[in-house]
Amino acid sequence: MADNKFVYLFGNDETEGKNSMKDLLGGKGANLAEMSNLEIPVPVGFTITTEVCTLYLKDEHYPAGLEGQIDNAIKELERTTGKRFGDLNNPLLLSVRSGARVSMPGMMDTVLNLGLNDSSVVGLANKTGNDRFAYDSYRRFLTMFADVVLGIEHEKFESTLTAKKKDKGVKQDTDLDVDDLKGLVEKFKGIIKEETGKDFPQEAREQLQMAIDAVFGSWNNQRAITYRRLNAIPGKWGTAVNVQSMVYGNMGDTSGTGVAFTRDPATGEKRFFGEYLINAQGEDVVAGIRTPQPIKTLKNNMPEVYNQLVDIYMKLEDHFRDMQDIEFTIEKGKLFMLQTRTGKRTAAAAIKIATDMVEEGLIDKETALTRVEPAQVDRLLHPNIDPDATPDVIANGLPASPGAAVGEVVFTAEHAEERAKKGEKTILVRAETSPEDIGGMNAAEGILTVRGGMTSHAAVVARGMGKPCVAGCGEIVIDMKEKNFHVGEHTINEGDMISIDGSTGDVILGEVELILPGVSSELEQILSWADEVRTLKVRTNADTPHDAKVARDFGAEGIGLCRTEHMFFGEDRIPAVREMIMAEEIDVRKAALKKLLPMQREDFIGIFRAMEGYPVTIRLLDPPLHEFLPNHEEAIEKLAELNASDAPQTELDRVKKVIGRIEYLKEMNPMLGHRGCRLGITYPEIYEMQAQAIIEAACELTKEGMTIVPEIMIPLISNIEELEFVKRHVIKVVEAVMEEKSIKLDYMIGTMIELPRAALTADQIAKEAEFFSFGTNDLTQTTFGFSRDDAGKFLPFYLESGILEDDPFAVLDQEGVGQLVKIGIEKGRATRPDIKIGICGEHGGEPKSVKFGHNVGLNYVSCSPFRVPIARLAAAHAVIENKQ
Amino acid sequence: MADNKFVYLFGNDETEGKNSMKDLLGGKGANLAEMSNLEIPVPVGFTITTEVCTLYLKDEHYPAGLEGQIDNAIKELERTTGKRFGDLNNPLLLSVRSGARVSMPGMMDTVLNLGLNDSSVVGLANKTGNDRFAYDSYRRFLTMFADVVLGIEHEKFESTLTAKKKDKGVKQDTDLDVDDLKGLVEKFKGIIKEETGKDFPQEAREQLQMAIDAVFGSWNNQRAITYRRLNAIPGKWGTAVNVQSMVYGNMGDTSGTGVAFTRDPATGEKRFFGEYLINAQGEDVVAGIRTPQPIKTLKNNMPEVYNQLVDIYMKLEDHFRDMQDIEFTIEKGKLFMLQTRTGKRTAAAAIKIATDMVEEGLIDKETALTRVEPAQVDRLLHPNIDPDATPDVIANGLPASPGAAVGEVVFTAEHAEERAKKGEKTILVRAETSPEDIGGMNAAEGILTVRGGMTSHAAVVARGMGKPCVAGCGEIVIDMKEKNFHVGEHTINEGDMISIDGSTGDVILGEVELILPGVSSELEQILSWADEVRTLKVRTNADTPHDAKVARDFGAEGIGLCRTEHMFFGEDRIPAVREMIMAEEIDVRKAALKKLLPMQREDFIGIFRAMEGYPVTIRLLDPPLHEFLPNHEEAIEKLAELNASDAPQTELDRVKKVIGRIEYLKEMNPMLGHRGCRLGITYPEIYEMQAQAIIEAACELTKEGMTIVPEIMIPLISNIEELEFVKRHVIKVVEAVMEEKSIKLDYMIGTMIELPRAALTADQIAKEAEFFSFGTNDLTQTTFGFSRDDAGKFLPFYLESGILEDDPFAVLDQEGVGQLVKIGIEKGRATRPDIKIGICGEHGGEPKSVKFGHNVGLNYVSCSPFRVPIARLAAAHAVIENKQ
Repeated sequence: MADNKFVYLFGNDETEGKNSMKDLLGGKGANLAEMSNLEIPVPVGFTITTEVCTLYLKDEHYPAGLEGQIDNAIKELERTTGKRFGDLNNPLLLSVRSGARVSMPGMMDTVLNLGLNDSSVVGLANKTGNDRFAYDSYRRFLTMFADVVLGIEHEKFESTLTAKKKDKGVKQDTDLDVDDLKGLVEKFKGIIKEETGKDFPQEAREQLQMAIDAVFGSWNNQRAITYRRLNAIPGKWGTAVNVQSMVYGNMGDTSGTGVAFTRDPATGEKRFFGEYLINAQGEDVVAGIRTPQPIKTLKNNMPEVYNQLVDIYMKLEDHFRDMQDIEFTIEKGKLFMLQTRTGKRTAAAAIKIATDMVEEGLIDKETALTRVEPAQVDRLLHPNIDPDATPDVIANGLPASPGAAVGEVVFTAEHAEERAKKGEKTILVRAETSPEDIGGMNAAEGILTVRGGMTSHAAVVARGMGKPCVAGCGEIVIDMKEKNFHVGEHTINEGDMISIDGSTGDVILGEVELILPGVSSELEQILSWADEVRTLKVRTNADTPHDAKVARDFGAEGIGLCRTEHMFFGEDRIPAVREMIMAEEIDVRKAALKKLLPMQREDFIGIFRAMEGYPVTIRLLDPPLHEFLPNHEEAIEKLAELNASDAPQTELDRVKKVIGRIEYLKEMNPMLGHRGCRLGITYPEIYEMQAQAIIEAACELTKEGMTIVPEIMIPLISNIEELEFVKRHVIKVVEAVMEEKSIKLDYMIGTMIELPRAALTADQIAKEAEFFSFGTNDLTQTTFGFSRDDAGKFLPFYLESGILEDDPFAVLDQEGVGQLVKIGIEKGRATRPDIKIGICGEHGGEPKSVKFGHNVGLNYVSCSPFRVPIARLAAAHAVIENKQ
Repeated sequence: MADNKFVYLFGNDETEGKNSMKDLLGGKGANLAEMSNLEIPVPVGFTITTEVCTLYLKDEHYPAGLEGQIDNAIKELERTTGKRFGDLNNPLLLSVRSGARVSMPGMMDTVLNLGLNDSSVVGLANKTGNDRFAYDSYRRFLTMFADVVLGIEHEKFESTLTAKKKDKGVKQDTDLDVDDLKGLVEKFKGIIKEETGKDFPQEAREQLQMAIDAVFGSWNNQRAITYRRLNAIPGKWGTAVNVQSMVYGNMGDTSGTGVAFTRDPATGEKRFFGEYLINAQGEDVVAGIRTPQPIKTLKNNMPEVYNQLVDIYMKLEDHFRDMQDIEFTIEKGKLFMLQTRTGKRTAAAAIKIATDMVEEGLIDKETALTRVEPAQVDRLLHPNIDPDATPDVIANGLPASPGAAVGEVVFTAEHAEERAKKGEKTILVRAETSPEDIGGMNAAEGILTVRGGMTSHAAVVARGMGKPCVAGCGEIVIDMKEKNFHVGEHTINEGDMISIDGSTGDVILGEVELILPGVSSELEQILSWADEVRTLKVRTNADTPHDAKVARDFGAEGIGLCRTEHMFFGEDRIPAVREMIMAEEIDVRKAALKKLLPMQREDFIGIFRAMEGYPVTIRLLDPPLHEFLPNHEEAIEKLAELNASDAPQTELDRVKKVIGRIEYLKEMNPMLGHRGCRLGITYPEIYEMQAQAIIEAACELTKEGMTIVPEIMIPLISNIEELEFVKRHVIKVVEAVMEEKSIKLDYMIGTMIELPRAALTADQIAKEAEFFSFGTNDLTQTTFGFSRDDAGKFLPFYLESGILEDDPFAVLDQEGVGQLVKIGIEKGRATRPDIKIGICGEHGGEPKSVKFGHNVGLNYVSCSPFRVPIARLAAAHAVIENKQ
């Protein structure tokens, strides 16, 4: 059997690769081949495939046949260039660069001028008649090889070079003469000997092999692994190695090197944008040793080269139909392209380029949609830190709700509210938030918590409000007594100014400059195209008329989750709520609920009105009752105070009773406790009141001529009998109200699927449920056995070490939780083919999860208002990706 | 289309039913038909099928055709008896009785003498020449009909009767003369008129229809529902109705009625056992109005009848090949059988009868096995309350660990230990227990807790110890300050004597007499037959050499779950454990672990030795670390004390540090928190120490020539990467120890499957796991989203109202959790066909769950030592049931 083909030539007469072979050749290799095919000047070279990387890392040796294929390729390079690899008179020098399937900037490493040694450097000097150039190349090669291949600190070489310049009293590398460089070469070889115990390898083929090993090995260096994790790039892809004959930008004033973008990567504006250095090699531009010149000055310096470059960039944009990021080298007035790739860009630029290119006829609308990453859109909807700022980051937590905020530190919700009334801006800093803090969270500019993950109370509520939040910042230690917090060496007192960036998780000392973006007309254009394409509906999670309105403006098509518990915390409600909880007799409880009824009705009227014409899914009370009672410690303190102040016995008895109730309701694991439908079953009167309020509200607006579509959702169902029980009670009330009002409403009763058992028995549950809404937060908790409030102790380590690729509370775990979602959909539809199914967990606004939702056949996703645009775009992407 | 057949005749020339038709005819009806087929004298009658019951309760009306079939059957009864239903001269009277598929004693109701009215009673008197008999029958009929059909309190009739007897100055009903009875009849009709507002129905066919309605309706009365729930009888089975021509035991001194067992139902001894009453109807025997005579006296009183009865009972035992419970009536010297059914028996009797019958050649071994209910065996292994005692039950909790115990109330574990040292017996009463209480639990005779379910800490540990426990007894209110507890009106002080019955959940005031059973040779016989039949292995959950020894004596074939956390609580270990937890640096932690290493090694040496030759599965540390720290409140109190006593600053600092750690480790939902492999991943040194101790212990005993089979089990895996991580660390240690000791052990590394995600991704997990053990306690918690510690607030209501049939922590939920078990097995075996799979949750000793385990193809179940015999028998039942 013939060996596999592991090596592909390019830049010569018979280029073997092309653009569509990115998986095998990596992005850089495929594009070099493609440019070669387009007759754009590219130095001759070859690509060793990604397959070799995978085999090498797996088997710990190279596949048979590879060595011969490399040797043959080198011969072809020698033939094309007329030079010889390792030759003493006319040496062929090579660059060795990594190139994975997608661009991984800064992750992999490059070696230039490979093939030089103590003899060939003389040959190079003689051949080019340029001693300085030869030794400059050699000292560069030694530095890079030592760094990348031998793992010696770059700093050791850098400081030797700096010392030399200081000795000579010069500033630029270019001010060093050939003898200086020769001296440096010797010193550099000395460092290598000292550090490795071996002489610098003089044999060119050995140098090449070591460089190839290093590139493949670097696929698994820590930076690469981290980058892949952050960008969800599979480890098994591997990298290719590109070996290319050197061209020299450092051969004097008619030589140079540069990088450019075909459009402005910050704004998206259509202008040629870049910079270059005369008499330099590639790494000098990036390293920032000398200040490069703007590309437009090349027009005057080398007009011919500039025109050629403009022709090439236009050819490339025409060919690739996207903004390109290019690298080039000019060797004695001759232009060579070293790389072209899709250029990175800001969110704003992505949107402008996409819409512009549609207008220019370069791409169609669907392609334009794919050019904007849904996650990028988030940045455009919130204030962000000025990219020119230099923030003093003192801690980093979870990026729980995007956007940046600035304000004075406060430690209690009340304080935040007081300060807001005076028009002052605050950041609310809490160990964790609870529903009682909602007023303060709303009043603050941003929220910072010590505990809790991406779906903690703080995170969920903040996202709902579109308010920046950094959660689970475990480095912070709050001292409530001293009213300050410590982080590292810093002590931040109440009233001190801090900034937080909820998009990165950064906590910043002092005030940073914020940029306030608006929804641009280009974004609206993109989103309207997305709406044309997508089939998945996008609803919102909203508990107030205000949130509903915001979401509707962002394009929400209904409410997928209206939580009713937040409504119970209002100052006007909490006394009645507590009365209800304290009641030991059903009549007393009913009397308390009666007080709540008109308030709940008003809540629903407001929400229905804001969402008129769209479905509104209202979840009946979900949290355990103890969440509505005062904190245990506070109650005990209060009792002690009362005792000390000789309060009347009745007051003492009342507080004692409250404490007794708190103790009675205390739970070991409230997440798995007496909540959701378990409350509605043991206290049916609670759900009955809520059902009455919902239907009375709907009837009232229907009388006004509005179209109201209430969907009553029962939470935490684990088996059909629970749903039957609750439904029976709810329907009784609903029918009674409709009869009394003489109105026949269309309404639905459905259920959350948020426990594994509900998904597993969805065929039965669908007998009673008219819709399903996957509560993927709770489903993730129970499927993994992770408490979202406590996972902070181990989840960060899981992510760092790669045990988990993503935080499952942020990105839906398709492998495990996703199986239950699929089982639930399949079984539910088997019983009731037209059952409406959505997701209302935090995943409803996360692009990968939205795509998953589309692919498994959900009818809708529901997410916090500010994520509605993201979900719209992601849903469109899902359709387009499936076509491809 | 012809109507379905709803009515089956028996006792005439052409009996239409037979014994195998129990599903349709109910047990009573099928057996009446069978006796008729065996030519045993049975009064002619007919059975209305269970199908009618189901249809009637569903549709709320009877199926078409039923009425005609009943009318035809009555005609046949008239033809056979020569009497006429509703006739004024020679009336046919009927008995109407329920009869479900399985015997439900006391659950359903009976009406005798139906067909009597004001005219036919005269006819009956004339025809029989016995006025007294006629009116006696009429007053009985009125009483029963009023009670059963019309729902009038029986007491109202009873008190009228008693008043009459008092008036007359007589004691027995039989002392009343015909005029007395006539007077009673009038009074009874008056009561009926008063209570129902209607006259007593005089029309015989109407009486019959009302009685049939009542029997069917009574299928859904509360007592019946409760009985069905307790005995897992499906509601959809329904009951049949048996309508039978009356025979009269109350026609004078040659008449009578009785009940008998073919063997002694208490001991199982082979002797004819029963009692009868002369001149009485069936209900008199049961009602205990007169004292019945032992059956042997019948031999003298009516020798012919007695001999006939003996012939019949022997014929029945021969035919049914089981002990029978029979009812008979003698009408003027003529014997009629009214019922035969399998007799209820005690556990001891069941075992004796089963083994005797094998010896007698009546049944084979497998049949003998099916005659003993696995759950009954439990009773034989623990002390029980003397059945003749009359305990004063003051509260009822969950029957958490079987057996009864007596002792003085103590409220702390320390107290129980102190008292035990003095040889005093105590019952430990706690709100809930924690691992710190283990010493006290062991010292006490029994445990009573206020909170917690069937798998709470108290329940699990008590079952492991074979110690009686009543858990979750919410009626009790403990006052730790006053050192007493309240329940209802009772106040029980520390030192007061109470008794508990862990088999029923009863809490009893004072001391009750206990019976201490031993394992009988018959039980050993049965269990050894079970071992011949079963294929499922039975292991035990044991954490100490003592428990392992007990379990081995009960027949355990290895340890399926050895929890290592209990070992950490020893007085000699806890300081080092806390040192380890307090450590902030890895070196300090490792030093503390080093102190624990030799102790752990000794633990494992003891356990391996006790289980020599059998596999021992050791679970690495599972609970969250905060369980090993002092209670928060106690630590705060301690700090206050120290403060007050001017303790040195270092001591204050130390306690403050402990408090800080407690606060740091505090969790919202510890069940879903930082525990299991999450600990082993964030602190790999803990598992490394444990692995070292396990393998060193195994090596040491191997050197002694023993065969040691260690299985290392990693808890709480949710995905393969966790297992890979832990396994890597464990193997490193294992290999190092084996190399050092120059011993090559066979060992395995496997995992718990106790989270839904583990079951769902079992195909991947099986790549690394050599065995699976389903932790069905945690799997039940996460699948249902039920915290076993908190479910007490709603689970009892769920069971009462039928939302759940069984407590899923006691009986494995096959529908939901069982699906995950099946998925896990299927996927695990797809990857690794020979993977060993077991269950080590509390379900491993519950008969239904054991059978499920057999049916889904588990290799073994593992349960607490005292449940091993139950599991052995249940596993055999599973095999036998599958053959049938």
